[in-house]
Amino acid sequence: MYQLNLGKLTVTDFLNQYWQKKPLLIKAGFKNFVDPLTADELAGLATEDDIESRIVSCKAQQWDMQTGPFTDFSSYGDKNWTLLVQAVDHWHPGAAKLLDPFRFIPNWRIDDLMVSFSAPGGGVGPHLDQYDVFIIQGEGKRHWRVGMPDSSLQQLCPHPRLLQVSPFTDCIDVITEPGDILYIPPGCPHDGVSIENSLNYSVGFRAPAQKDLVTGLADYLIDHDVTGQRFTDAGRSAAISAGKITDSELDSIQQLLQQLIADRQQLPAWFGGLITRAKHELDLNEPDPHYGSDEIAEYLEEGSVLSRTGGLRCCYYQQDPASDILLFINGDQITLPADELMTAQLLCDHTELIASQNRHFISSEQRLMLMTNLINQAYWYFSE
Amino acid sequence: MYQLNLGKLTVTDFLNQYWQKKPLLIKAGFKNFVDPLTADELAGLATEDDIESRIVSCKAQQWDMQTGPFTDFSSYGDKNWTLLVQAVDHWHPGAAKLLDPFRFIPNWRIDDLMVSFSAPGGGVGPHLDQYDVFIIQGEGKRHWRVGMPDSSLQQLCPHPRLLQVSPFTDCIDVITEPGDILYIPPGCPHDGVSIENSLNYSVGFRAPAQKDLVTGLADYLIDHDVTGQRFTDAGRSAAISAGKITDSELDSIQQLLQQLIADRQQLPAWFGGLITRAKHELDLNEPDPHYGSDEIAEYLEEGSVLSRTGGLRCCYYQQDPASDILLFINGDQITLPADELMTAQLLCDHTELIASQNRHFISSEQRLMLMTNLINQAYWYFSE
Ligand SMILES: O=C(O)CCC(=O)C(=O)O
Ligand SMILES: O=C(O)CCC(=O)C(=O)O
Ligand SMILES: [Co+2]
Ligand SMILES: [Co+2]
Repeated sequence: MYQLNLGKLTVTDFLNQYWQKKPLLIKAGFKNFVDPLTADELAGLATEDDIESRIVSCKAQQWDMQTGPFTDFSSYGDKNWTLLVQAVDHWHPGAAKLLDPFRFIPNWRIDDLMVSFSAPGGGVGPHLDQYDVFIIQGEGKRHWRVGMPDSSLQQLCPHPRLLQVSPFTDCIDVITEPGDILYIPPGCPHDGVSIENSLNYSVGFRAPAQKDLVTGLADYLIDHDVTGQRFTDAGRSAAISAGKITDSELDSIQQLLQQLIADRQQLPAWFGGLITRAKHELDLNEPDPHYGSDEIAEYLEEGSVLSRTGGLRCCYYQQDPASDILLFINGDQITLPADELMTAQLLCDHTELIASQNRHFISSEQRLMLMTNLINQAYWYFSE
Repeated sequence: MYQLNLGKLTVTDFLNQYWQKKPLLIKAGFKNFVDPLTADELAGLATEDDIESRIVSCKAQQWDMQTGPFTDFSSYGDKNWTLLVQAVDHWHPGAAKLLDPFRFIPNWRIDDLMVSFSAPGGGVGPHLDQYDVFIIQGEGKRHWRVGMPDSSLQQLCPHPRLLQVSPFTDCIDVITEPGDILYIPPGCPHDGVSIENSLNYSVGFRAPAQKDLVTGLADYLIDHDVTGQRFTDAGRSAAISAGKITDSELDSIQQLLQQLIADRQQLPAWFGGLITRAKHELDLNEPDPHYGSDEIAEYLEEGSVLSRTGGLRCCYYQQDPASDILLFINGDQITLPADELMTAQLLCDHTELIASQNRHFISSEQRLMLMTNLINQAYWYFSE
């Protein structure tokens, strides 16, 4: 278990003063930091087809970017390149634990854990991202500079697949050491250049844009065959120009959309489905044959530990204590009775369930069935 | 040219009293009606791959429905079946003219002209539609009954591909004769049973539903790479339950959507594109080789007549007299300068352009170029 140490700040201070506002260096954010993986293990992940990886290098002032899988790293030499692997939390349970200290930001806002290895001089260059990130320094040292958002910065494209920014003024200039953490809000330029072989762990966030929301709502209406109200124009006047689209017609169109958006009834369902859909491949290994619920009960009684598959997105929503609970797992919705809040919380708030917690799932037939299904879908698995 | 005769009613009376409100029999709505096509011609269209057609029959109380193309009609005998062909206005310029008298309802609300041939006893059975329709009686006679919307009616499904309703109380019970027109609002049950071989022309309307609008907006944002604003949560409090989606988070999500919908700026563009996209195949015959603008100018000077391809959807929007005009043709947008309203109106308000109108297009290089492009895309063609 990694324990986040904000020094003199409380989590609430951090949220009030820094979150989405300004960058922060959290010196020794993890005390006595132990890397969950080695550079060799990371390189191993980058050889896999299902895992998204890329190498950014800069040799003789020429930026380059290659996408994985990679079979051989020797051509990159021992300087000026970095290997970045996405969604390492999906493939490496130990690394996935690095997300947990940041869950004071809710699950649905967390995207994935990206891990980078950089040789001395390596980095992706000065750039900015649209999302918040905590960058944890693992093994090695890196020279990091971070600035405030600055609309005068120019987008540079030193290679067709690399977006960088013009030189920026920094407000943080630091050589990060193992366990140091940088918090960087959206739009803040940053640049990390390795001093020695270095591992960095990026806890990345997501924040849906208006386009994502409209698309998600549209998909929901299509999937659930919800037509909604149709345009009506009783009492209209005769068209003077048959080809004209009038403002009063557009008013009605706009109202139809406004009514749909104003309806709070379906919002939790479509948003929960949208926001828990996996963006990166999951490492799902369905048990074969499937377990019977009696077997599951037996293992849980014996004290087995259950782990949630890395990167599985789980959330719930309950309008008020008397309402059904909407449980969202990997884009699917399961409706639970109002008094099953504990079930939803165990499944969503924890990535590991120990014997004392698992007793909850053997104490009712419904819960046992639910857990049996989740295990048979490979969403949870016995880890001990 | 067909001339609509509403008897004692003006168009405004019709719109105030009947449109989207209650059914109306317009006796001799077209005086001395001459069918634009024959039953044989209709059968010919139903043999084509590109044209949507179906035959509904009821033999020995057994309903059946087949979809075209059809090669042989003899198996249906001389009773109790009807052939329905969609979007005949796309394929038959003469029949397309039946839409024009109804253009006091604007273009974008008009869907297509469906034409049916029914043998004695033929009909699709009692049913209701979601859209307004004018049903014109051509050759022959048919017994039509129409009722008011009635939520107590039951949906029946006498065949997997036929939706009918339980027996309804009529407010119109008539034997229609050539030139009679029935107006039927959405949701009104209706049933037409042929008395003798009969042609019926349905001028059908469309009315986008909330689902269509959201989907249209989503497609627009994707096509135009408009990301819009992202969710933000500066000043948030620490999650107590990491898996919980809170009401205040949903408030922000809802606000993002509301802001997007409230923005009137992009509405005309995406709506105009959506509503002018063809639902049925168009009969587009691109000139080969393409015309040069000099040739077009020559033909127009000589007095050639231009026709708009049947079913081509054309609309325009202008916010105020000083704003650019958005011209929408078949889902595409063309922006015209504010003073080109005449150009937009000629293209959108007319399905045929005669010599005096075409002078407008030779009086400026831009207009001639526009018309040349439209002709080379087969959207307009020389008909005389
Ligand atoms: O680790 C790296 O080289 C890049 C990290 C970064 O820029 C980020 O996570 O936003
Ligand atoms: O012509 C027919 O048989 C069907 C017409 C009809 O029901 C309609 O156009 O809505
Ligand atoms: Co970055
Ligand atoms: Co009908």
